[in-house]
Amino acid sequence: MKDYDVVVIGGSAAGIPAAITAKRHYPDKSVLLIRRENKVLIPCGIPYIFGTVGSPDKDIIPDKVLENNGIKLLIDPAVHINNKKRIVETKAGEQVHYRKLVLATGSEPMIPPIPGIDKGNIFSIKKNISYLNGMIKAMEHASNLVIVGCGFIGVELAEECKKKNKNLNITIVEMMKHCLQLVYDKSFCLKAEETLINQGINLMVDEKVESFAGNDKVEAIKLKSGKKIKADMVILGIGAVSNVELAQEIGLEIGSTRSIMVNRYMQTSDPNIFACGDCTEKVSFFDGKSSALKLASIATMEARIAGANLFASSRLNMGVIGVFSTTLGNSAFAAAGLTEGQARKQGYNIIVGESEAINRHPGGMPGAENLKVKLVFEAGTQIILGGQICGAKSGGELINAISAFIHQRMTANDIAMFQLGTHPALTASPISYQLVNAAEIAIKQLKIKRG
Amino acid sequence: MKDYDVVVIGGSAAGIPAAITAKRHYPDKSVLLIRRENKVLIPCGIPYIFGTVGSPDKDIIPDKVLENNGIKLLIDPAVHINNKKRIVETKAGEQVHYRKLVLATGSEPMIPPIPGIDKGNIFSIKKNISYLNGMIKAMEHASNLVIVGCGFIGVELAEECKKKNKNLNITIVEMMKHCLQLVYDKSFCLKAEETLINQGINLMVDEKVESFAGNDKVEAIKLKSGKKIKADMVILGIGAVSNVELAQEIGLEIGSTRSIMVNRYMQTSDPNIFACGDCTEKVSFFDGKSSALKLASIATMEARIAGANLFASSRLNMGVIGVFSTTLGNSAFAAAGLTEGQARKQGYNIIVGESEAINRHPGGMPGAENLKVKLVFEAGTQIILGGQICGAKSGGELINAISAFIHQRMTANDIAMFQLGTHPALTASPISYQLVNAAEIAIKQLKIKRG
Repeated sequence: MKDYDVVVIGGSAAGIPAAITAKRHYPDKSVLLIRRENKVLIPCGIPYIFGTVGSPDKDIIPDKVLENNGIKLLIDPAVHINNKKRIVETKAGEQVHYRKLVLATGSEPMIPPIPGIDKGNIFSIKKNISYLNGMIKAMEHASNLVIVGCGFIGVELAEECKKKNKNLNITIVEMMKHCLQLVYDKSFCLKAEETLINQGINLMVDEKVESFAGNDKVEAIKLKSGKKIKADMVILGIGAVSNVELAQEIGLEIGSTRSIMVNRYMQTSDPNIFACGDCTEKVSFFDGKSSALKLASIATMEARIAGANLFASSRLNMGVIGVFSTTLGNSAFAAAGLTEGQARKQGYNIIVGESEAINRHPGGMPGAENLKVKLVFEAGTQIILGGQICGAKSGGELINAISAFIHQRMTANDIAMFQLGTHPALTASPISYQLVNAAEIAIKQLKIKRG
Repeated sequence: MKDYDVVVIGGSAAGIPAAITAKRHYPDKSVLLIRRENKVLIPCGIPYIFGTVGSPDKDIIPDKVLENNGIKLLIDPAVHINNKKRIVETKAGEQVHYRKLVLATGSEPMIPPIPGIDKGNIFSIKKNISYLNGMIKAMEHASNLVIVGCGFIGVELAEECKKKNKNLNITIVEMMKHCLQLVYDKSFCLKAEETLINQGINLMVDEKVESFAGNDKVEAIKLKSGKKIKADMVILGIGAVSNVELAQEIGLEIGSTRSIMVNRYMQTSDPNIFACGDCTEKVSFFDGKSSALKLASIATMEARIAGANLFASSRLNMGVIGVFSTTLGNSAFAAAGLTEGQARKQGYNIIVGESEAINRHPGGMPGAENLKVKLVFEAGTQIILGGQICGAKSGGELINAISAFIHQRMTANDIAMFQLGTHPALTASPISYQLVNAAEIAIKQLKIKRG
């Protein structure tokens, strides 16, 4: 029987950093990563295989990241855990003994029980190369693509498919009032919608799918409003469900989002088994309540906690902030923490500051684009709750400064005194720098309110 | 006599945000900004007027930023302060009464007492439009340009002048061993030097200027090493001295860097007079000792403190971190806080982590460029002391996440758990994200050290 100090099940955004972190923090321990896939797709890159990147084979996480870190690899699905004897059994019949086990089993696309869901040419975004190649093939023959769900996957897919084939008629159906509504406040959503519409993508918001019509293959989508949309291909982008079979089988505690329950050290109800990533129950950084967020960046964060804590607790999970970014058209859309809408819903008394400026100084410098920042603060303490960015692509890194502000529960006053780095060819001027001005404008709101 | 609640002397990176902040925090107070310049140059943009931007007239801070914020403007040099009667006198004989005065008088280029310094065609970077237009004219007739000083101004100028005129023979003379040595560690400096050399710019490091030779106009530079360089134009970029005449005249305390002394509220030794920006004495965020840093971004930070504290103290200056960025070739070079070299010199026991990765995922996404991050931590507490970035231009915003880490004295462990935002078209993957990996690698060093 094989014997390893650490066994990680899962080889993507949670499994890899969990294994690397284990090896970094416990260099003398042996680490095995068990996964079912021959090649692992970069999860966030999948929408781009339909356009910019061109093929799933160009969206692969190289295995050398494991080799370089001294991690052994076993490609063979784990099918059973014996947590009394600390043994993982694989499909091929291999038995592997562990001292500490990390479950990083990920998630699968959610398939809603809508009548007709089993018809041909209805796809979801599975992390499976041959399935995705099948989708690309199907798309070559499609004329009317309907994407269900206008979250990140939906908008990215729509844009990429349109890039690939200008003649493809693409419609996104979304049950909420706006596209990307879970992540942005209305003015940012409207901007995103405008960008999609300008690319010739049809949006149908505030619409629920009632059924899929057709014979073997999908031919149309019926909406609850009574509308009917022609469709010879459908892609679902409405969320994901955790892979918890292995955990359930041995009775590990499961949380309210149907994910593996962990404590703040990422330990499951079996102290020798840790879990991280999409398969794992999460709590919000803000109120400690269950959170349904599933993001590759959260997976890596949790993996770095789990991996470091395996043999001695040193890292505490503070809960998920939720830091997102995407590009639509030529603009970055990024967000961290709570939106104004979410904060109000959670009962916060808030103040908001918005600031926009060109990301160069003077404006005549090449590459000058607008960049808008919105910051949301709790009014009493002035502690930051969230931020949103829209505009220049450097916003994709600027959101990480906002994430740091949130991590550290900085106040509007702290941010107003933030020591920023600026340069004519890289950022807005220090006078018009969006982050600090948004904080100052929020403070000004407070003075007016109190006035 | 005119009478204002707040009078600000100086209209650039300190004066403008001081006035805006005063108005934001005390909307009922009247604010007057007095300055000598008809039009105010964007200070950081000045090197770019010689190439990319093309003219000083395209590098102007628009006055509407004052109008929009309800700030009155008086263009007329302030020549005298009567701080007993709280009156500022201008060159044109105007008298303005103030309740609170902010000195934001800036700095002038340092002119070293080198023999021959007064010869024609020896310039410094004055914030004066007609002087700069004179320089641009002179450059049209120059064949051999020598830039003294290989700091930010030196490297930016060299690149811009080369862009404008490929045939101009440009040499930078630097007394230290490396270009940009005050801001970057050696490997980053070498990369910067390589970039300059690849553009055909000559570097002479570890060389001091002994004298300027020629008749009326400069013809050559003699170095202390005995070398002689042909030069028909010279630009000095070796630092700046604070404008403290007005302050000295009324006996305000002057600090060890020959700048106006202030307390942590940005108040001078006269409690009704505040100072901020280049004219003001600074202390380091790290050890509280005097700091000679003069940056527009620091000026705006100090101005936001001074302006907010005018009638009620609410903001405390924690000292300067020093956050820098520039571009050389197609790469961003950015830094915050202490370099490894500076930290060692100050007696810190340190650990260092470096991580580099492509700023896209997968690497086939358009715009993929390398981005390298180096982080420096104090070994005992693991608190971050500084960071350096080289590569993709998004580094110009990423440095602000590092600045936030430093502000908050975050540890390597905190940063390893940082919740990052990543996206295929904007950043490295969450697995290879440079910030968290640099922190993890530093922690790994510590484990090896402690063995």
